[in-house]
Amino acid sequence: MSALPESLAGTTVAVLGGTGPQGRGLARRFAAAGIPVVLGSRSAERAEDAARELPGEVRGLDNAGAAAAGDIVVVAVPWEGHGELLTALKGELAGKVVVDCVNPLGFDKQGAYALAVEEGSAAQQAQAILGDSTVVGAFHNVSAVKLEDPEVESVDTDVLVLGDVREATDLVQDLAGVIPGVRGVYGGRLRNAHQVEALTANLISVNRRYKAHAGVRITDI
Amino acid sequence: MSALPESLAGTTVAVLGGTGPQGRGLARRFAAAGIPVVLGSRSAERAEDAARELPGEVRGLDNAGAAAAGDIVVVAVPWEGHGELLTALKGELAGKVVVDCVNPLGFDKQGAYALAVEEGSAAQQAQAILGDSTVVGAFHNVSAVKLEDPEVESVDTDVLVLGDVREATDLVQDLAGVIPGVRGVYGGRLRNAHQVEALTANLISVNRRYKAHAGVRITDI
Repeated sequence: MSALPESLAGTTVAVLGGTGPQGRGLARRFAAAGIPVVLGSRSAERAEDAARELPGEVRGLDNAGAAAAGDIVVVAVPWEGHGELLTALKGELAGKVVVDCVNPLGFDKQGAYALAVEEGSAAQQAQAILGDSTVVGAFHNVSAVKLEDPEVESVDTDVLVLGDVREATDLVQDLAGVIPGVRGVYGGRLRNAHQVEALTANLISVNRRYKAHAGVRITDI
Repeated sequence: MSALPESLAGTTVAVLGGTGPQGRGLARRFAAAGIPVVLGSRSAERAEDAARELPGEVRGLDNAGAAAAGDIVVVAVPWEGHGELLTALKGELAGKVVVDCVNPLGFDKQGAYALAVEEGSAAQQAQAILGDSTVVGAFHNVSAVKLEDPEVESVDTDVLVLGDVREATDLVQDLAGVIPGVRGVYGGRLRNAHQVEALTANLISVNRRYKAHAGVRITDI
Protein backbone atom coordinates (compact mmCIF):
# COMPACT_ATOMS: atom_id res chain seq x y z
CA MET A 1 0.00 0.00 0.00
CA SER A 2 1.51 3.37 -0.95
CA ALA A 3 0.90 6.45 1.16
CA LEU A 4 -2.43 8.19 0.72
CA PRO A 5 -2.39 11.64 -0.84
CA GLU A 6 -2.43 14.37 1.83
CA SER A 7 -5.87 15.50 0.67
CA LEU A 8 -7.34 12.19 1.86
CA ALA A 9 -5.58 11.90 5.22
CA GLY A 10 -8.11 11.32 7.99
CA THR A 11 -10.96 11.10 5.49
CA THR A 12 -13.74 8.54 5.78
CA VAL A 13 -15.47 7.57 2.54
CA ALA A 14 -19.09 6.43 2.65
CA VAL A 15 -20.52 4.42 -0.23
CA LEU A 16 -24.32 4.55 -0.56
CA GLY A 17 -25.58 1.52 -2.41
CA GLY A 18 -22.51 -0.15 -1.02
CA THR A 19 -23.91 -3.66 -1.34
CA GLY A 20 -24.27 -3.46 -5.15
CA PRO A 21 -21.39 -4.56 -7.40
CA GLN A 22 -20.11 -1.05 -8.19
CA GLY A 23 -20.36 0.17 -4.59
CA ARG A 24 -18.80 -2.97 -3.17
CA GLY A 25 -16.02 -2.85 -5.75
CA LEU A 26 -15.16 0.78 -5.01
CA ALA A 27 -15.32 0.15 -1.25
CA ARG A 28 -12.91 -2.76 -1.62
CA ARG A 29 -10.39 -0.62 -3.48
CA PHE A 30 -10.67 2.41 -1.18
CA ALA A 31 -10.28 0.23 1.90
CA ALA A 32 -7.33 -1.58 0.34
CA ALA A 33 -5.65 1.81 -0.06
CA GLY A 34 -6.04 2.44 3.67
CA ILE A 35 -9.13 4.65 3.64
CA PRO A 36 -11.76 4.00 6.34
CA VAL A 37 -14.95 3.07 4.49
CA VAL A 38 -18.59 2.97 5.55
CA LEU A 39 -20.94 0.92 3.39
CA GLY A 40 -24.49 2.19 3.26
CA SER A 41 -27.50 0.15 2.27
CA ARG A 42 -31.25 0.25 2.79
CA SER A 43 -30.70 -2.53 5.30
CA ALA A 44 -27.98 -1.93 7.89
CA GLU A 45 -27.76 -5.68 8.36
CA ARG A 46 -26.97 -6.32 4.70
CA ALA A 47 -24.42 -3.52 4.81
CA GLU A 48 -22.76 -5.12 7.83
CA ASP A 49 -22.68 -8.49 6.06
CA ALA A 50 -21.09 -6.95 2.96
CA ALA A 51 -18.61 -5.02 5.10
CA ARG A 52 -17.45 -8.19 6.83
CA GLU A 53 -16.53 -9.69 3.45
CA LEU A 54 -14.20 -6.83 2.58
CA PRO A 55 -10.64 -6.46 3.81
CA GLY A 56 -9.52 -3.29 5.57
CA GLU A 57 -11.41 -0.86 7.78
CA VAL A 58 -14.96 -1.27 6.48
CA ARG A 59 -18.19 -1.09 8.45
CA GLY A 60 -21.84 -1.18 7.42
CA LEU A 61 -24.74 1.11 8.30
CA ASP A 62 -28.04 2.10 6.77
CA ASN A 63 -27.75 4.74 4.04
CA ALA A 64 -28.59 7.63 6.38
CA GLY A 65 -26.00 6.49 8.92
CA ALA A 66 -23.39 6.05 6.22
CA ALA A 67 -24.17 9.47 4.73
CA ALA A 68 -23.70 11.04 8.15
CA ALA A 69 -20.47 9.12 8.82
CA GLY A 70 -18.69 9.88 5.52
CA ASP A 71 -16.55 12.93 4.82
CA ILE A 72 -16.83 12.11 1.13
CA VAL A 73 -20.00 10.28 0.12
CA VAL A 74 -20.08 8.12 -2.99
CA VAL A 75 -23.53 7.48 -4.48
CA ALA A 76 -23.62 4.10 -6.22
CA VAL A 77 -27.32 3.28 -5.99
CA PRO A 78 -29.53 2.15 -8.89
CA TRP A 79 -30.93 4.98 -10.98
CA GLU A 80 -34.44 4.08 -9.86
CA GLY A 81 -34.72 5.73 -6.46
CA HIS A 82 -31.65 7.97 -6.97
CA GLY A 83 -33.57 11.21 -6.57
CA GLU A 84 -35.72 9.91 -3.74
CA LEU A 85 -32.73 8.72 -1.70
CA LEU A 86 -30.81 11.97 -2.12
CA THR A 87 -33.87 14.01 -1.18
CA ALA A 88 -34.17 12.00 2.03
CA LEU A 89 -30.47 12.46 2.87
CA LYS A 90 -30.17 16.15 2.02
CA GLY A 91 -29.41 17.04 5.64
CA GLU A 92 -26.77 14.34 6.17
CA LEU A 93 -25.03 15.30 2.92
CA ALA A 94 -24.94 19.08 3.49
CA GLY A 95 -21.48 20.59 3.31
CA LYS A 96 -19.94 17.42 1.87
CA VAL A 97 -18.45 16.34 -1.43
CA VAL A 98 -20.92 13.90 -2.98
CA VAL A 99 -19.54 11.70 -5.74
CA ASP A 100 -22.25 10.51 -8.09
CA CYS A 101 -21.42 7.31 -10.04
CA VAL A 102 -24.93 6.56 -11.24
CA ASN A 103 -25.60 5.71 -14.89
CA PRO A 104 -29.22 6.21 -15.97
CA LEU A 105 -29.50 3.33 -18.44
CA GLY A 106 -32.29 1.27 -19.89
CA PHE A 107 -31.93 -2.27 -21.21
CA ASP A 108 -33.77 -4.20 -23.90
CA LYS A 109 -33.00 -7.03 -26.33
CA GLN A 110 -30.57 -4.79 -28.22
CA GLY A 111 -28.57 -4.02 -25.12
CA ALA A 112 -28.17 -0.87 -23.06
CA TYR A 113 -29.16 2.68 -23.92
CA ALA A 114 -29.08 6.05 -22.20
CA LEU A 115 -32.23 7.25 -20.48
CA ALA A 116 -33.29 10.88 -20.76
CA VAL A 117 -32.91 12.72 -17.44
CA GLU A 118 -34.91 15.87 -16.84
CA GLU A 119 -32.00 17.64 -15.13
CA GLY A 120 -29.59 16.50 -17.85
CA SER A 121 -27.77 13.78 -15.95
CA ALA A 122 -27.80 11.90 -12.67
CA ALA A 123 -25.03 14.17 -11.41
CA GLN A 124 -27.01 17.30 -12.26
CA GLN A 125 -30.10 15.84 -10.63
CA ALA A 126 -28.02 15.22 -7.50
CA GLN A 127 -26.74 18.81 -7.51
CA ALA A 128 -30.26 20.15 -8.06
CA ILE A 129 -31.48 18.24 -5.00
CA LEU A 130 -28.40 18.78 -2.83
CA GLY A 131 -28.02 22.54 -2.92
CA ASP A 132 -25.76 22.50 0.17
CA SER A 133 -23.41 19.78 -1.12
CA THR A 134 -20.76 19.85 -3.83
CA VAL A 135 -21.59 17.17 -6.37
CA VAL A 136 -18.87 15.59 -8.49
CA GLY A 137 -19.48 12.94 -11.17
CA ALA A 138 -16.97 10.10 -11.34
CA PHE A 139 -16.42 6.32 -11.53
CA HIS A 140 -19.12 5.88 -14.18
CA ASN A 141 -17.14 3.71 -16.56
CA VAL A 142 -15.10 1.51 -14.22
CA SER A 143 -15.79 -2.19 -14.50
CA ALA A 144 -17.37 -3.47 -11.28
CA VAL A 145 -16.09 -6.92 -12.20
CA LYS A 146 -12.51 -5.68 -12.17
CA LEU A 147 -12.99 -3.62 -9.01
CA GLU A 148 -14.44 -6.58 -7.17
CA ASP A 149 -11.87 -9.15 -8.24
CA PRO A 150 -9.06 -9.29 -5.68
CA GLU A 151 -6.89 -11.04 -8.28
CA VAL A 152 -6.99 -7.93 -10.50
CA GLU A 153 -4.05 -6.01 -9.10
CA SER A 154 -4.30 -3.04 -11.43
CA VAL A 155 -7.42 -1.64 -13.11
CA ASP A 156 -6.50 -0.35 -16.56
CA THR A 157 -8.72 2.71 -16.86
CA ASP A 158 -8.95 6.44 -16.35
CA VAL A 159 -11.79 7.91 -14.30
CA LEU A 160 -13.31 11.04 -15.79
CA VAL A 161 -14.10 13.47 -12.96
CA LEU A 162 -16.76 16.11 -13.62
CA GLY A 163 -17.65 19.09 -11.52
CA ASP A 164 -17.89 22.83 -11.17
CA VAL A 165 -15.70 23.27 -8.06
CA ARG A 166 -11.99 22.79 -8.60
CA GLU A 167 -11.19 21.82 -5.01
CA ALA A 168 -13.79 19.04 -5.15
CA THR A 169 -12.76 17.65 -8.53
CA ASP A 170 -9.10 17.68 -7.45
CA LEU A 171 -10.07 15.72 -4.33
CA VAL A 172 -12.02 13.13 -6.31
CA GLN A 173 -9.17 12.81 -8.81
CA ASP A 174 -6.98 11.96 -5.83
CA LEU A 175 -9.57 9.45 -4.62
CA ALA A 176 -9.66 7.75 -8.03
CA GLY A 177 -5.89 7.61 -8.03
CA VAL A 178 -5.72 5.43 -4.91
CA ILE A 179 -7.00 2.51 -7.01
CA PRO A 180 -3.97 0.82 -8.56
CA GLY A 181 -3.81 1.47 -12.30
CA VAL A 182 -6.47 4.18 -12.21
CA ARG A 183 -5.86 7.80 -13.03
CA GLY A 184 -8.37 10.51 -12.15
CA VAL A 185 -8.72 12.88 -15.10
CA TYR A 186 -10.65 16.14 -15.03
CA GLY A 187 -13.39 15.70 -17.64
CA GLY A 188 -15.28 18.98 -17.61
CA ARG A 189 -18.17 20.64 -15.84
CA LEU A 190 -21.24 18.94 -14.43
CA ARG A 191 -23.27 19.99 -17.47
CA ASN A 192 -21.12 17.57 -19.47
CA ALA A 193 -21.74 14.61 -17.15
CA HIS A 194 -24.58 13.10 -19.18
CA GLN A 195 -22.41 11.72 -21.94
CA VAL A 196 -19.93 10.19 -19.52
CA GLU A 197 -22.77 8.44 -17.69
CA ALA A 198 -24.29 7.35 -21.00
CA LEU A 199 -20.96 6.12 -22.38
CA THR A 200 -21.40 3.15 -20.09
CA ALA A 201 -23.99 1.89 -22.59
CA ASN A 202 -21.30 1.92 -25.28
CA LEU A 203 -18.88 0.08 -23.03
CA ILE A 204 -21.56 -2.56 -22.45
CA SER A 205 -21.76 -2.96 -26.25
CA VAL A 206 -17.97 -3.19 -26.40
CA ASN A 207 -17.97 -5.80 -23.65
CA ARG A 208 -20.51 -7.87 -25.52
CA ARG A 209 -18.77 -7.68 -28.89
CA TYR A 210 -15.22 -8.21 -27.61
CA LYS A 211 -15.96 -10.32 -24.53
CA ALA A 212 -14.16 -7.78 -22.38
CA HIS A 213 -14.50 -5.59 -19.31
CA ALA A 214 -13.65 -2.40 -21.15
CA GLY A 215 -12.39 0.83 -19.66
CA VAL A 216 -11.39 4.17 -21.12
CA ARG A 217 -8.02 5.88 -21.27
CA ILE A 218 -7.54 9.49 -22.30
CA THR A 219 -4.49 9.89 -24.53
CA ASP A 220 -2.00 12.74 -24.87
CA ILE A 221 -2.17 13.75 -21.20
CA MET B 1 2.37 2.65 -46.80
CA SER B 2 1.04 -0.78 -45.84
CA ALA B 3 -1.46 -2.61 -48.03
CA LEU B 4 -5.08 -1.50 -47.73
CA PRO B 5 -7.52 -3.98 -46.24
CA GLU B 6 -9.34 -5.94 -48.95
CA SER B 7 -12.63 -4.33 -47.98
CA LEU B 8 -11.31 -0.95 -49.15
CA ALA B 9 -9.71 -2.05 -52.44
CA GLY B 10 -10.99 0.10 -55.31
CA THR B 11 -12.96 2.29 -52.93
CA THR B 12 -13.14 6.06 -53.30
CA VAL B 13 -13.85 8.02 -50.13
CA ALA B 14 -15.64 11.36 -50.37
CA VAL B 15 -15.38 13.85 -47.51
CA LEU B 16 -18.19 16.41 -47.37
CA GLY B 17 -17.06 19.51 -45.54
CA GLY B 18 -13.63 18.53 -46.73
CA THR B 19 -12.18 22.02 -46.42
CA GLY B 20 -12.75 22.19 -42.64
CA PRO B 21 -10.05 21.01 -40.22
CA GLN B 22 -11.64 17.63 -39.45
CA GLY B 23 -12.49 16.86 -43.08
CA ARG B 24 -9.12 17.97 -44.37
CA GLY B 25 -7.34 15.99 -41.67
CA LEU B 26 -9.23 12.79 -42.43
CA ALA B 27 -8.74 13.28 -46.18
CA ARG B 28 -5.00 13.67 -45.65
CA ARG B 29 -4.78 10.42 -43.71
CA PHE B 30 -7.00 8.42 -46.08
CA ALA B 31 -5.04 9.64 -49.11
CA ALA B 32 -1.74 8.91 -47.37
CA ALA B 33 -2.94 5.32 -46.97
CA GLY B 34 -3.49 5.08 -50.73
CA ILE B 35 -7.23 5.65 -50.88
CA PRO B 36 -8.52 7.91 -53.68
CA VAL B 37 -10.24 10.83 -51.96
CA VAL B 38 -12.72 13.43 -53.18
CA LEU B 39 -13.06 16.57 -51.09
CA GLY B 40 -16.49 18.14 -51.14
CA SER B 41 -17.25 21.75 -50.27
CA ARG B 42 -19.99 24.28 -50.95
CA SER B 43 -17.54 25.83 -53.40
CA ALA B 44 -15.89 23.47 -55.88
CA GLU B 45 -13.08 25.97 -56.25
CA ARG B 46 -12.24 25.96 -52.56
CA ALA B 47 -12.38 22.15 -52.59
CA GLU B 48 -9.93 22.09 -55.50
CA ASP B 49 -7.60 24.47 -53.68
CA ALA B 50 -7.69 22.32 -50.53
CA ALA B 51 -7.16 19.16 -52.59
CA ARG B 52 -4.04 20.58 -54.20
CA GLU B 53 -2.49 21.08 -50.78
CA LEU B 54 -2.88 17.42 -49.83
CA PRO B 55 -0.52 14.65 -50.90
CA GLY B 56 -1.86 11.56 -52.67
CA GLU B 57 -4.82 11.11 -55.01
CA VAL B 58 -7.13 13.91 -53.87
CA ARG B 59 -9.47 15.99 -55.97
CA GLY B 60 -12.04 18.63 -55.12
CA LEU B 61 -15.68 19.01 -56.18
CA ASP B 62 -18.79 20.64 -54.82
CA ASN B 63 -20.56 18.60 -52.13
CA ALA B 64 -23.06 17.07 -54.57
CA GLY B 65 -20.31 16.03 -56.96
CA ALA B 66 -18.27 14.57 -54.14
CA ALA B 67 -21.28 12.70 -52.74
CA ALA B 68 -21.88 11.19 -56.18
CA ALA B 69 -18.21 10.28 -56.65
CA GLY B 70 -17.63 8.55 -53.31
CA ASP B 71 -18.28 4.90 -52.54
CA ILE B 72 -18.05 5.74 -48.86
CA VAL B 73 -19.10 9.29 -47.97
CA VAL B 74 -17.77 10.94 -44.81
CA VAL B 75 -19.86 13.84 -43.47
CA ALA B 76 -17.65 16.36 -41.67
CA VAL B 77 -19.71 19.51 -42.05
CA PRO B 78 -20.62 21.92 -39.25
CA TRP B 79 -23.72 20.91 -37.27
CA GLU B 80 -25.52 24.00 -38.54
CA GLY B 81 -26.69 22.96 -41.98
CA HIS B 82 -26.11 19.22 -41.38
CA GLY B 83 -29.73 18.25 -41.93
CA GLU B 84 -30.24 20.62 -44.83
CA LEU B 85 -27.17 19.34 -46.71
CA LEU B 86 -28.08 15.69 -46.24
CA THR B 87 -31.65 16.33 -47.37
CA ALA B 88 -30.31 17.93 -50.55
CA LEU B 89 -27.95 15.00 -51.23
CA LYS B 90 -30.36 12.16 -50.44
CA GLY B 91 -30.26 10.92 -54.06
CA GLU B 92 -26.47 11.00 -54.40
CA LEU B 93 -26.06 9.16 -51.09
CA ALA B 94 -28.60 6.39 -51.74
CA GLY B 95 -27.19 2.90 -51.42
CA LYS B 96 -23.95 4.11 -49.84
CA VAL B 97 -22.29 3.90 -46.46
CA VAL B 98 -22.43 7.40 -44.99
CA VAL B 99 -20.02 8.07 -42.13
CA ASP B 100 -21.24 10.85 -39.87
CA CYS B 101 -18.50 12.60 -37.82
CA VAL B 102 -20.53 15.60 -36.77
CA ASN B 103 -20.60 16.75 -33.14
CA PRO B 104 -23.59 18.94 -32.23
CA LEU B 105 -21.89 21.24 -29.73
CA GLY B 106 -22.49 24.69 -28.37
CA PHE B 107 -19.83 26.99 -26.97
CA ASP B 108 -19.90 29.71 -24.35
CA LYS B 109 -17.50 31.24 -21.82
CA GLN B 110 -17.42 27.99 -19.86
CA GLY B 111 -16.39 25.97 -22.88
CA ALA B 112 -18.21 23.40 -24.98
CA TYR B 113 -21.45 21.57 -24.22
CA ALA B 114 -23.66 19.07 -26.01
CA LEU B 115 -26.67 20.38 -27.90
CA ALA B 116 -29.97 18.52 -27.75
CA VAL B 117 -30.83 16.90 -31.08
CA GLU B 118 -34.43 16.02 -31.82
CA GLU B 119 -33.52 12.70 -33.42
CA GLY B 120 -31.13 11.88 -30.57
CA SER B 121 -27.84 12.52 -32.34
CA ALA B 122 -26.39 13.82 -35.58
CA ALA B 123 -25.94 10.24 -36.74
CA GLN B 124 -29.58 9.40 -36.06
CA GLN B 125 -30.69 12.59 -37.80
CA ALA B 126 -28.63 11.51 -40.82
CA GLN B 127 -30.22 8.05 -40.81
CA ALA B 128 -33.70 9.56 -40.47
CA ILE B 129 -33.09 11.71 -43.54
CA LEU B 130 -31.16 9.14 -45.58
CA GLY B 131 -33.54 6.18 -45.55
CA ASP B 132 -31.74 4.57 -48.51
CA SER B 133 -28.22 4.91 -47.08
CA THR B 134 -26.51 3.06 -44.25
CA VAL B 135 -25.35 5.60 -41.69
CA VAL B 136 -22.41 4.86 -39.42
CA GLY B 137 -21.12 7.23 -36.72
CA ALA B 138 -17.33 7.51 -36.38
CA PHE B 139 -14.31 9.82 -36.09
CA HIS B 140 -16.04 12.08 -33.55
CA ASN B 141 -13.23 12.29 -31.04
CA VAL B 142 -10.14 12.39 -33.23
CA SER B 143 -8.05 15.53 -32.92
CA ALA B 144 -8.13 17.49 -36.18
CA VAL B 145 -4.84 19.07 -35.16
CA LYS B 146 -3.16 15.67 -35.03
CA LEU B 147 -4.78 14.48 -38.25
CA GLU B 148 -3.67 17.58 -40.10
CA ASP B 149 -0.09 17.63 -38.86
CA PRO B 150 2.14 15.71 -41.30
CA GLU B 151 4.78 15.50 -38.57
CA VAL B 152 2.43 13.39 -36.41
CA GLU B 153 3.25 9.93 -37.70
CA SER B 154 0.88 8.03 -35.46
CA VAL B 155 -2.40 9.24 -33.94
CA ASP B 156 -2.81 7.74 -30.47
CA THR B 157 -6.56 7.12 -30.33
CA ASP B 158 -9.30 4.60 -30.92
CA VAL B 159 -12.25 5.50 -33.13
CA LEU B 160 -15.60 4.36 -31.76
CA VAL B 161 -17.72 3.12 -34.68
CA LEU B 162 -21.49 3.11 -34.21
CA GLY B 163 -24.12 1.56 -36.40
CA ASP B 164 -26.88 -0.95 -36.85
CA VAL B 165 -25.49 -2.86 -39.85
CA ARG B 166 -22.53 -5.09 -39.12
CA GLU B 167 -21.11 -5.02 -42.65
CA ALA B 168 -21.03 -1.22 -42.58
CA THR B 169 -19.48 -0.89 -39.13
CA ASP B 170 -16.85 -3.49 -40.06
CA LEU B 171 -16.02 -1.46 -43.17
CA VAL B 172 -15.70 1.79 -41.21
CA GLN B 173 -13.55 0.07 -38.59
CA ASP B 174 -11.24 -0.92 -41.48
CA LEU B 175 -11.29 2.67 -42.73
CA ALA B 176 -10.32 4.01 -39.30
CA GLY B 177 -7.54 1.47 -39.12
CA VAL B 178 -5.74 2.86 -42.19
CA ILE B 179 -4.71 5.88 -40.09
CA PRO B 180 -1.44 5.00 -38.38
CA GLY B 181 -1.97 4.48 -34.64
CA VAL B 182 -5.75 4.41 -34.90
CA ARG B 183 -7.88 1.41 -34.11
CA GLY B 184 -11.53 1.20 -35.17
CA VAL B 185 -13.58 -0.18 -32.27
CA TYR B 186 -17.24 -1.16 -32.49
CA GLY B 187 -19.00 1.12 -30.02
CA GLY B 188 -22.65 0.10 -30.20
CA ARG B 189 -25.77 0.90 -32.13
CA LEU B 190 -26.72 4.23 -33.65
CA ARG B 191 -29.05 4.95 -30.73
CA ASN B 192 -25.91 5.21 -28.57
CA ALA B 193 -24.18 7.72 -30.87
CA HIS B 194 -25.24 10.83 -28.94
CA GLN B 195 -22.86 10.35 -26.05
CA VAL B 196 -19.91 9.66 -28.33
CA GLU B 197 -20.61 12.86 -30.25
CA ALA B 198 -21.09 14.77 -27.00
CA LEU B 199 -17.93 13.34 -25.44
CA THR B 200 -16.05 15.73 -27.70
CA ALA B 201 -17.14 18.50 -25.31
CA ASN B 202 -15.37 16.65 -22.49
CA LEU B 203 -12.25 16.23 -24.58
CA ILE B 204 -12.28 19.97 -25.24
CA SER B 205 -12.32 20.47 -21.45
CA VAL B 206 -9.47 18.00 -21.12
CA ASN B 207 -7.50 19.81 -23.82
CA ARG B 208 -7.97 23.10 -22.03
CA ARG B 209 -7.02 21.80 -18.59
CA TYR B 210 -4.06 19.67 -19.68
CA LYS B 211 -2.95 21.64 -22.76
CA ALA B 212 -3.35 18.53 -24.87
CA HIS B 213 -4.97 17.13 -27.99
CA ALA B 214 -6.69 14.30 -26.18
CA GLY B 215 -7.97 11.09 -27.67
CA VAL B 216 -9.68 8.02 -26.24
CA ARG B 217 -8.48 4.44 -25.95
CA ILE B 218 -10.71 1.56 -24.96
CA THR B 219 -8.92 -0.81 -22.61
CA ASP B 220 -9.14 -4.60 -22.20
CA ILE B 221 -9.81 -5.28 -25.90
